[in-house]
Amino acid sequence: MGEFSFIEWIRKRQKRRKDVKLGIGDDCAVMDVSSDKLTLITTDMLVDGTHFDLKKCTIRDVGRKAIACSISDVAAMGCPPTVTVISICFPDHTTEKFARELYKGIWDISDKYNIEIVGGDIISGRSPFCINVTMLGRDDGLKPIRRSGARAGDAILVTGTLGGSILRKHLSFEPRLKEGLFLNKNFSMHAMIDISDGLTADLNHILEASGVGAILYKDQIPVSDAAMKLSKKTGHTPLYHALSDGEDYELLMTLSKAQAKRVLSTGLLTDVKVSCIGEIVKGSGIQLKSPGGNIRRIKPRGYEHLK
Amino acid sequence: MGEFSFIEWIRKRQKRRKDVKLGIGDDCAVMDVSSDKLTLITTDMLVDGTHFDLKKCTIRDVGRKAIACSISDVAAMGCPPTVTVISICFPDHTTEKFARELYKGIWDISDKYNIEIVGGDIISGRSPFCINVTMLGRDDGLKPIRRSGARAGDAILVTGTLGGSILRKHLSFEPRLKEGLFLNKNFSMHAMIDISDGLTADLNHILEASGVGAILYKDQIPVSDAAMKLSKKTGHTPLYHALSDGEDYELLMTLSKAQAKRVLSTGLLTDVKVSCIGEIVKGSGIQLKSPGGNIRRIKPRGYEHLK
Repeated sequence: MGEFSFIEWIRKRQKRRKDVKLGIGDDCAVMDVSSDKLTLITTDMLVDGTHFDLKKCTIRDVGRKAIACSISDVAAMGCPPTVTVISICFPDHTTEKFARELYKGIWDISDKYNIEIVGGDIISGRSPFCINVTMLGRDDGLKPIRRSGARAGDAILVTGTLGGSILRKHLSFEPRLKEGLFLNKNFSMHAMIDISDGLTADLNHILEASGVGAILYKDQIPVSDAAMKLSKKTGHTPLYHALSDGEDYELLMTLSKAQAKRVLSTGLLTDVKVSCIGEIVKGSGIQLKSPGGNIRRIKPRGYEHLK
Repeated sequence: MGEFSFIEWIRKRQKRRKDVKLGIGDDCAVMDVSSDKLTLITTDMLVDGTHFDLKKCTIRDVGRKAIACSISDVAAMGCPPTVTVISICFPDHTTEKFARELYKGIWDISDKYNIEIVGGDIISGRSPFCINVTMLGRDDGLKPIRRSGARAGDAILVTGTLGGSILRKHLSFEPRLKEGLFLNKNFSMHAMIDISDGLTADLNHILEASGVGAILYKDQIPVSDAAMKLSKKTGHTPLYHALSDGEDYELLMTLSKAQAKRVLSTGLLTDVKVSCIGEIVKGSGIQLKSPGGNIRRIKPRGYEHLK
């Protein structure tokens, strides 16, 4: 297999969007943005041995994950994704079958969310498998939800359950796009982020960007079954995993308590659990409050590269 | 150095554009496109050992090259670049100095061309150094020049001189942005591409996309001094290097002979040589014509990954 014939194989199988004027096969792709006010951009790089382990998962899993991570970032702004460009570094001696399986995983999820692959770069090197996904989104008449809008008095909500994603969810998660769009359309959102580094680490990103602090309710954190299972192996508590583990790709948000009550009571987010896990306060940092009323400061903990 | 403190260091030093509503530091960057009709997108991945060799060049060279390659792709559409997102995989044990030197190289060229770095991803892994640059461009009232517009009877022009870029130019080249914009604004361009794979390989991309063939004038190919120097080492002719070597990042274009005459006679492209190297003909493939009139078919030859 050569680079150009593989690109041609991709090009022929790619589903097209109407707003893409020029897709795969030129120096740049070209998108019609004449009906848009804003373009959103996000990029994520994943490398074998750090973000996944090809000895323990399939390359199709990896293709799926790479696209889902970027969708999750656009969903966390409460806006719809549109197109993507994908760069791939294949190790030397990669087979055609392997390369095509990767694209099956990519299409499994990009087709589902109507995202067109409009370009990319295929290279080879003496390197572990590495993939970079850059995704664009549009405002669609909505205001992108930033990290910096949290206010003292806000409730903190989170979708789904947390912790132990390493056991499987980091590969199989469904990006919360439907939920992100629904929340942005129907509620007055103050701040939102997707949980990729870990609950406390990502909450801390909101707190620092907004200049506020937070109290988390210890008994309200939605601990996942995977966190319980993992805790038996690691010796850490399930709560520790729910607070610290990365790659759950759930949405973490703040909004007024009145708006939060509406979110929690609406019947429209029924296929995903939403929990109120705390509140935004003046000051800085994160405090953990026990049901008995005890409060202690905790350090944000999560995955950080280059440490 | 941690990932987050390094990102903060980048964010503080980054020059801002007015049309960027939200730069580094959220799930997505947000750009105002309300005055644009089209958004252009290109992406390039470069890995140590394939696209450069950190034993023979500095990391600042690499930062410079990574951005310049993407500018070259937007320039080849005849449109201005705007913003970029950059993903980097640092090998384990990367020093802060190394990471900052990379960004100096990136800014050396992005600042010059008023391109804002609006986001990225910084990861680490057991991997050679790898960088991915995705760049956006805007139409600015211009029509993007595709590869597919070449017509029989067109002249084939190329900027600069070709071959032997491995000796230095692949790191130090100036992307032909000024020239690409000038050409698109002032002439009726039919097709354009930047020479990254090699003259014959990239010409062949134009030919295949346009459904035409080409005759190259053997004595008109602008052979570089580097091609002559390299030929003494390799045993290949200087012409071979000019026809086959990649990464010259010159602009290769086709337009009517009347328009080409205007390009060649204009005084406005004086700081870069422009040569007429052949013509587009009906049919397919590339023929090489000697001054004596002999014509022979040649195969497009250039760099292809995964071969």
